[in-house]
Amino acid sequence: MKSPLRLVSELIPLSRGESTGRELYELIKELFPICRSITGEGLRSTLRILQKHIPLTLEEIPTGTPAFDWTVPKEWNIRDAYIKNSSGERIVDFQKSNLCVLNYSIPVNRKISLDELRAHLFTLPEQPEAIPYRTSYYREAWGFCLPHRLLESLAPGEYQVQIDSTLAAGHLSYGELLLPGESDEEILISAHACHPSLANDNLSGVAVAAFLARSLADVHRRYSYRFLFLPGTIGSIVWLSRNQQSASRISHGLVLACIWHVLKHLGSQNVRDFSPYGYDERQYCSPGFNLSVGCLSRTPHGQFPEYHTSEDNLDFVRPDALADSCACVLSILAALEENQTYRNRNPMCEPQLGRRGLYRQLGGLRDAGQLEMAMLWLLNLSDETHSVIDIAERSNLPFDCLRTAAATLRENGLLEAVVPRTMKSDVSLDSIAGNRR
Amino acid sequence: MKSPLRLVSELIPLSRGESTGRELYELIKELFPICRSITGEGLRSTLRILQKHIPLTLEEIPTGTPAFDWTVPKEWNIRDAYIKNSSGERIVDFQKSNLCVLNYSIPVNRKISLDELRAHLFTLPEQPEAIPYRTSYYREAWGFCLPHRLLESLAPGEYQVQIDSTLAAGHLSYGELLLPGESDEEILISAHACHPSLANDNLSGVAVAAFLARSLADVHRRYSYRFLFLPGTIGSIVWLSRNQQSASRISHGLVLACIWHVLKHLGSQNVRDFSPYGYDERQYCSPGFNLSVGCLSRTPHGQFPEYHTSEDNLDFVRPDALADSCACVLSILAALEENQTYRNRNPMCEPQLGRRGLYRQLGGLRDAGQLEMAMLWLLNLSDETHSVIDIAERSNLPFDCLRTAAATLRENGLLEAVVPRTMKSDVSLDSIAGNRR
Amino acid sequence: MKSPLRLVSELIPLSRGESTGRELYELIKELFPICRSITGEGLRSTLRILQKHIPLTLEEIPTGTPAFDWTVPKEWNIRDAYIKNSSGERIVDFQKSNLCVLNYSIPVNRKISLDELRAHLFTLPEQPEAIPYRTSYYREAWGFCLPHRLLESLAPGEYQVQIDSTLAAGHLSYGELLLPGESDEEILISAHACHPSLANDNLSGVAVAAFLARSLADVHRRYSYRFLFLPGTIGSIVWLSRNQQSASRISHGLVLACIWHVLKHLGSQNVRDFSPYGYDERQYCSPGFNLSVGCLSRTPHGQFPEYHTSEDNLDFVRPDALADSCACVLSILAALEENQTYRNRNPMCEPQLGRRGLYRQLGGLRDAGQLEMAMLWLLNLSDETHSVIDIAERSNLPFDCLRTAAATLRENGLLEAVVPRTMKSDVSLDSIAGNRR
Repeated sequence: MKSPLRLVSELIPLSRGESTGRELYELIKELFPICRSITGEGLRSTLRILQKHIPLTLEEIPTGTPAFDWTVPKEWNIRDAYIKNSSGERIVDFQKSNLCVLNYSIPVNRKISLDELRAHLFTLPEQPEAIPYRTSYYREAWGFCLPHRLLESLAPGEYQVQIDSTLAAGHLSYGELLLPGESDEEILISAHACHPSLANDNLSGVAVAAFLARSLADVHRRYSYRFLFLPGTIGSIVWLSRNQQSASRISHGLVLACIWHVLKHLGSQNVRDFSPYGYDERQYCSPGFNLSVGCLSRTPHGQFPEYHTSEDNLDFVRPDALADSCACVLSILAALEENQTYRNRNPMCEPQLGRRGLYRQLGGLRDAGQLEMAMLWLLNLSDETHSVIDIAERSNLPFDCLRTAAATLRENGLLEAVVPRTMKSDVSLDSIAGNRR
Repeated sequence: MKSPLRLVSELIPLSRGESTGRELYELIKELFPICRSITGEGLRSTLRILQKHIPLTLEEIPTGTPAFDWTVPKEWNIRDAYIKNSSGERIVDFQKSNLCVLNYSIPVNRKISLDELRAHLFTLPEQPEAIPYRTSYYREAWGFCLPHRLLESLAPGEYQVQIDSTLAAGHLSYGELLLPGESDEEILISAHACHPSLANDNLSGVAVAAFLARSLADVHRRYSYRFLFLPGTIGSIVWLSRNQQSASRISHGLVLACIWHVLKHLGSQNVRDFSPYGYDERQYCSPGFNLSVGCLSRTPHGQFPEYHTSEDNLDFVRPDALADSCACVLSILAALEENQTYRNRNPMCEPQLGRRGLYRQLGGLRDAGQLEMAMLWLLNLSDETHSVIDIAERSNLPFDCLRTAAATLRENGLLEAVVPRTMKSDVSLDSIAGNRR
Repeated sequence: MKSPLRLVSELIPLSRGESTGRELYELIKELFPICRSITGEGLRSTLRILQKHIPLTLEEIPTGTPAFDWTVPKEWNIRDAYIKNSSGERIVDFQKSNLCVLNYSIPVNRKISLDELRAHLFTLPEQPEAIPYRTSYYREAWGFCLPHRLLESLAPGEYQVQIDSTLAAGHLSYGELLLPGESDEEILISAHACHPSLANDNLSGVAVAAFLARSLADVHRRYSYRFLFLPGTIGSIVWLSRNQQSASRISHGLVLACIWHVLKHLGSQNVRDFSPYGYDERQYCSPGFNLSVGCLSRTPHGQFPEYHTSEDNLDFVRPDALADSCACVLSILAALEENQTYRNRNPMCEPQLGRRGLYRQLGGLRDAGQLEMAMLWLLNLSDETHSVIDIAERSNLPFDCLRTAAATLRENGLLEAVVPRTMKSDVSLDSIAGNRR
């Protein structure tokens, strides 16, 4: 009988396995065809699929509910949409790509001249084969998105346009899961789940967040973890308006977006400064909350050409890269979970590591091994003021190596864990992923 | 009837007009031929010409007046000077260039051999066509400055040297103008006006300062502005010795020098550190005063080859560049004048800009416009601790754009100006133009 | 009769003389053949040779004496060692190079097959001609070090191995010298003296430290100087364990190692960060002491190919470079000794340097001389808060130049030395040589 996993760090190598990537990719594939929006059956069924994997609570907030400066909008649902040419051919067809409808389009069904139609068509002249993704949530409108090449080929004449949608009182849905830990201080993992058939933005974030929720359920947790799957902007605003109390317990947070492949070498060179034109960290970091929430992305939104186009499809995400992203987030979480401040119990000079078998016996060598370096750094800086994360930054050694060395030194009575004054470390997720403060 | 200009920022586009450059150039052209020095009729008549444009008060400080460690020197005046060769030709002629006399030369009138004369001749071997500018204010001497090429061509023999100057008890002159503002905190604009026929150093600074004085007279001023036109070093020392009280009210200051063309893109890359071998900021920043005074220059003194030579002439300054310099200084002043700290009145999440018509309605676009970005930054950082200048630095957006966005948000009740604890902003002119602190 | 030297700075030019380099080289040459270790006659005789030059006190600490987490080991002595081939030839011979024995080898005398012997042989495959330097202080072992080329040429068969050493109760020796100064605050100069025939590491440090001790004996000292010549690691640990009181008086310290040629242009580009895999600064900087002790090296240990091999020999060190190193350390010490904080007695504007003959009389020149710049910087920053070292960093002028300028200004009544609040300057040796804090 296998003993249960104990530590977040033990999840890291597991997550790198081939099965992780495959599983994530399968989930993305299952969710991809659904036409999501900030409300409606697409979003709701997405959350229900996630419930098959994790015990998500679904919340349904009625249209008209106030949320700070905002109001929950009408619920949008769509069954079909097309543009037919004079020959009755569907030249733009919702059944083939749900991106082809301006998201939140009001219903329409009429014959219209090409000239009149043009005002309702959206294309990307600089990417003529791609269908752009466009929305009009808060101003009632209708429209179609199509490849620019197709627009150029349209003959003058009359076209039949049909959008079989409804925009009516209903609900805004979101999913929430709290994994309680030793402390009620929370780490927030938030993913937006409102985009239609777009793979990297945002199904990669949704899938990775779901995987994390399931993995973290099985291990010892120092922090509590709150997972949110919600429509962008309005979703986080609604959640914050209903959970001001809970929000104050969030000490670190990550918005996962476009992360099919976060960089392998986490480092400050990848940290981008907070921008208020980001994802939901905009809301979590608004001055009234100002939480330590960063955004973890592969390439920031808007900076890859596939962004918000039909080219952000299932070919654009890769199983191995998705697994890498999971391992990366787990590495960050493991560092927070297992961060510790120590006191060197032999602070006067170095203790004699050699007689404890912790140091190679042969002298005169050019280099010490990484583990020996880690022990020396830990002994030198463990003065109750430097945490292991601090020492990792100072020594430029991997956190994992320092954690292992610290465990060894502890077993040998050379280090003693000290209760930090507060559990909040001075290194937070936002310093890794870029946050306002 | 035109309504009066209200704000310093409104002067910026006006100053960019073609007429500004022409006007500045005309003033420089009028002042160029005058043989100025740190005292005397040349300096005095320069100040009188400025009085035609701005209501400058002329101060006359008698020779012998003590000023800290210094004493007002004798007044120097000159009518003519030349070196004649044996044929009686004026080979060096003050009438052709007043640079050719060592500034502050005592009178001389005698025949002298070339060998003896050499000790009184100054040239620039590395710029053989240029006449250098040299002075001897505080040690009585006489001399001539000439092109090195000319020196090399001089035949042995006797030369007639004549300097028709006087060095006698008189006065040191300077001009001063105070434009009172809402607050008695002052912004100091100081220009040295003691150089003879040199265009960039220092007539460009004199002309731009005069233009600013005239322009600022017509607008609403939050700060008071003090303009000083004075001889370098001794002038600022004399002024400071007579105005210790006033000096303490100077919260920001700029020494304008060599600014025929300040760089268009103001930015930290152009900020040079304070050096005690600069212009009058040396005195304003001496430890007993230590004012926040920087120096605004195109190329710092001594770092362009025309510096202090006959090549710094009317061809070296250009009308359009002078106008640019004015606009640049006005931009700095406008930022100080119109800087403001706000409170976001909807601090919980972002307010819904779209329903106020402040945000494009179509979603999914790659980039937000600059004005939308400015609004988002303002809303995010307006927590009563960040001024608009602070937000400009943080967001890397132009101050103007943020100012416009702030006005819009204010009209919509989303921002509220808060009275800053003190009017002194933490961003000062010296952080723009390089100052000791 | 020559007047006595007064200041540390006066030693700098003297130390640059040819005789310094020769003398240092001769001392290194005398010490080179001795087979040193962390205990034993080799170390002891090295310290006795130093006593011919400086009044070093020798301390002898018995085997078994506890020192924090460590214990003074048995004393090791060696008379001879070799490997003979079947023909009876000494193919590895201690008489030719003492590096060829694993330092601290226990005695051995037997016939052994090549295969069995291999486990006791150490070579450097990547430097096949060099003999590596290896030790086994704390685990009883025996072995030989040899060129890899030689190892490869060994024929199978039997070899006679002999190590005529003793490892028995005895003493650990170290040398100490205190030169008392005006203050009992101490500057520590520590050199390890435990390496056998290796010239740069550590005889260069030993020789330079001895030279410094002799030179500093003759001059006025503001600080007290403590010199330690000890075996690496165990030596500094033993000293610290016996001198916890004295250690607290060390305000600055340098470990001299591998310094046959420290870089001529001392500057921050040469400052390496503290690493706990360094020399004895590891012990001085352990958290229980955390002294301001840096390490001064030419190339840090392990980063030059000759490090810990037979190629670090008398050809690897050069007299002129050794003299340079002395001058360099003296420059650092002179800056500390002669650092001073001043008050500008004419703080309102600049004093008129010209009328005191301190400033060139001719105006208009492009550049001021370095000495004039130094005077201007000193006058500008001498507000009782900036020391001359601070001003050197701010102005990027050499300390020497500022010191000279300060003396001139002081003679002219323009600067006045102020008693610093505490003698500890905020610039310490460790900021020059890289230290933990």
